[in-house]
Amino acid sequence: MKTSPAIEDIHIVSVGAGNLATQLVTEMHRKGLKIVQVYSRTETSARLLAEKTGAEWCTDITRLSPEADIYLFSVKDSVLPDLIAQMPFRKGLWLHTAGSVPMDIFKSYPDRYGVIYPLQTFSKTGKPEWNRIPFFTEGSDEDILNTVNRLASLFSGTVCPLSSDKRKYIHLSAVFACNFTNLMYTIADRLTDNAGIPFSVLLPLIDETAQKVHRFSPLEAQTGPAVRYDENVMEKHVSLLKANPDWQDIYQLLSQNIYKLQEESINDE
Amino acid sequence: MKTSPAIEDIHIVSVGAGNLATQLVTEMHRKGLKIVQVYSRTETSARLLAEKTGAEWCTDITRLSPEADIYLFSVKDSVLPDLIAQMPFRKGLWLHTAGSVPMDIFKSYPDRYGVIYPLQTFSKTGKPEWNRIPFFTEGSDEDILNTVNRLASLFSGTVCPLSSDKRKYIHLSAVFACNFTNLMYTIADRLTDNAGIPFSVLLPLIDETAQKVHRFSPLEAQTGPAVRYDENVMEKHVSLLKANPDWQDIYQLLSQNIYKLQEESINDE
Repeated sequence: MKTSPAIEDIHIVSVGAGNLATQLVTEMHRKGLKIVQVYSRTETSARLLAEKTGAEWCTDITRLSPEADIYLFSVKDSVLPDLIAQMPFRKGLWLHTAGSVPMDIFKSYPDRYGVIYPLQTFSKTGKPEWNRIPFFTEGSDEDILNTVNRLASLFSGTVCPLSSDKRKYIHLSAVFACNFTNLMYTIADRLTDNAGIPFSVLLPLIDETAQKVHRFSPLEAQTGPAVRYDENVMEKHVSLLKANPDWQDIYQLLSQNIYKLQEESINDE
Repeated sequence: MKTSPAIEDIHIVSVGAGNLATQLVTEMHRKGLKIVQVYSRTETSARLLAEKTGAEWCTDITRLSPEADIYLFSVKDSVLPDLIAQMPFRKGLWLHTAGSVPMDIFKSYPDRYGVIYPLQTFSKTGKPEWNRIPFFTEGSDEDILNTVNRLASLFSGTVCPLSSDKRKYIHLSAVFACNFTNLMYTIADRLTDNAGIPFSVLLPLIDETAQKVHRFSPLEAQTGPAVRYDENVMEKHVSLLKANPDWQDIYQLLSQNIYKLQEESINDE
C-alpha cells in the first residue's frame, strides 16, 4: 500500500466470511473501500459476502489475487496457521482480527503485517454500533501501525494500539464478560422455562445488570445471596438444581467466589 | 383495608429500609400513598427513608403502629421469620417482597397476607424504570390477590400472579442472570486491569451481549471458543489464569457446560 492512498484506492481481500468478516468487510464496502475478493472454505458464505460487497469469491486459497493492498484474515484461530502457510504469495499488508493470536504468527511470511481486533460479539445480521466499539491495533512497524490505526478510525473513535501480550488478556476478559455471561442467560432461560414463565421477564433485570456497571464497579454492583453468604437461600437454590449436577457445581463455585472477592475487598480497605 | 379505598387513603408501614424497601416505599410516597412508619434495625436507614417519605421511624419492632392498612416486609430472608414472630399485633395486610420465601411464612400470624416481588436489582440511589419491571404477586385469598395486583399496577404494566413454588425458580434464575453475570463482569474487570486497560472498554461488549438476547435465544446467541471447543484457545486461557486457580476452575466448568448445551441442542434438532 502506498503512503496514505485515498480510501477508494485501498483494495481489500477478505480471507474468511464468518460473522466478524461479514460485518467488517460489509462496512468497509459502505465506507468506499474496494473489496476485490472474498475467500471462504464454505461456498455459500463466500458467495453471500461477495455479492454484498461487489467482490469476486473463491473457495481455494491458492487462487487469491496477489494485487490487493490488504489481506484481512478473519477465520477461526485454529485454521489461521494453515491458511497462512498456503498463501500463494507474500505481497501486501496482512492483518488478522483475532484476540488470542499473536501478531508474530505472520512472521517470516509477508514483510508487512499487523492486527485489527474489534472488541465486540458479532452476528451476521444487524448493524453493529461501530463507533462505540474499541479497536485494538498492532503493526510490524510504525508506518504499518499508522495504516492500521487509520483503517480502524474509519469504524470507531476508540482505537488503541496494544501489544499481542496484552491483547490476549482483553480477549480472555471478553470470554468472561460475553461468552460466560451468555451461559448465565442460557441457564436462567431454562429455569424460567421450568416455571412456565417466558425468558422475556428477565430482560429488564439483564439490562439493568449491564447498565449498573456503567455507574459502579462490578465489585460494588454485586448483590444476591452469596454476597451476604445467606446459606439458607443458597442451600435451597442448590437443591432446586438437583436435576442438573453441573449447575449445582456452577452455583456453588460462583457463589463461593463472589463471597471471597467481597471479603478480600473488605480486608483491603 | 376497605374495598378499593382511594390511593391516598392507603396507609403503609415499611418493615425494612434496604435498597428494595427504599425504592418501593419512596415510589409509593410519590404515587400518593401515605407512608406512616418505617422500621429498620439500623437507625440511619430508618431515619433516611422516613425523612424521604414524611413517615415516622423506629428501630424497635414492638413499637409499630397497628393502624396501617399494609405492612410491607422487605428485609433479608434470614431475618424475616424472627421479625414476623416479634410483631406486636396481627392486624392489617402483611406483604413480603422476597423471591425465595413462600407466602405461607405468614400463616398463623395475620388473617390477610401476600407477596409482591419485583424482579429487578435495586440500588438505594437512582430511579428504577418501574414500568419495565415485572411484578410477581400472590395473595392468601382472591380479594387480597386483587389488592396486591392493584398495588403492583401502580408501578408496572407487567403484573403476574405466581405461586410461591414457581416464584422460587424465578428468583434462582435471577441469581444466574444478575448476580452470577455480575461476577463475570468482576473477573473481566480484574483481567483488563492486569493488562493496564480500563474496564470501560468492555462496556459496549457487555451491552451488546445483553441486547443480543432481546433478539435471539441465549442458546442461539452463544459465541466464543467453548462453542466450537477450540482447545488451543481454551488451554491458553486457562494458563493465563494460573495465578487464580478458582478462575481456572470457573473457566473450565463454564466452557464444558457451554459446549455440552450446544451439543444437546444439536442432538435435539
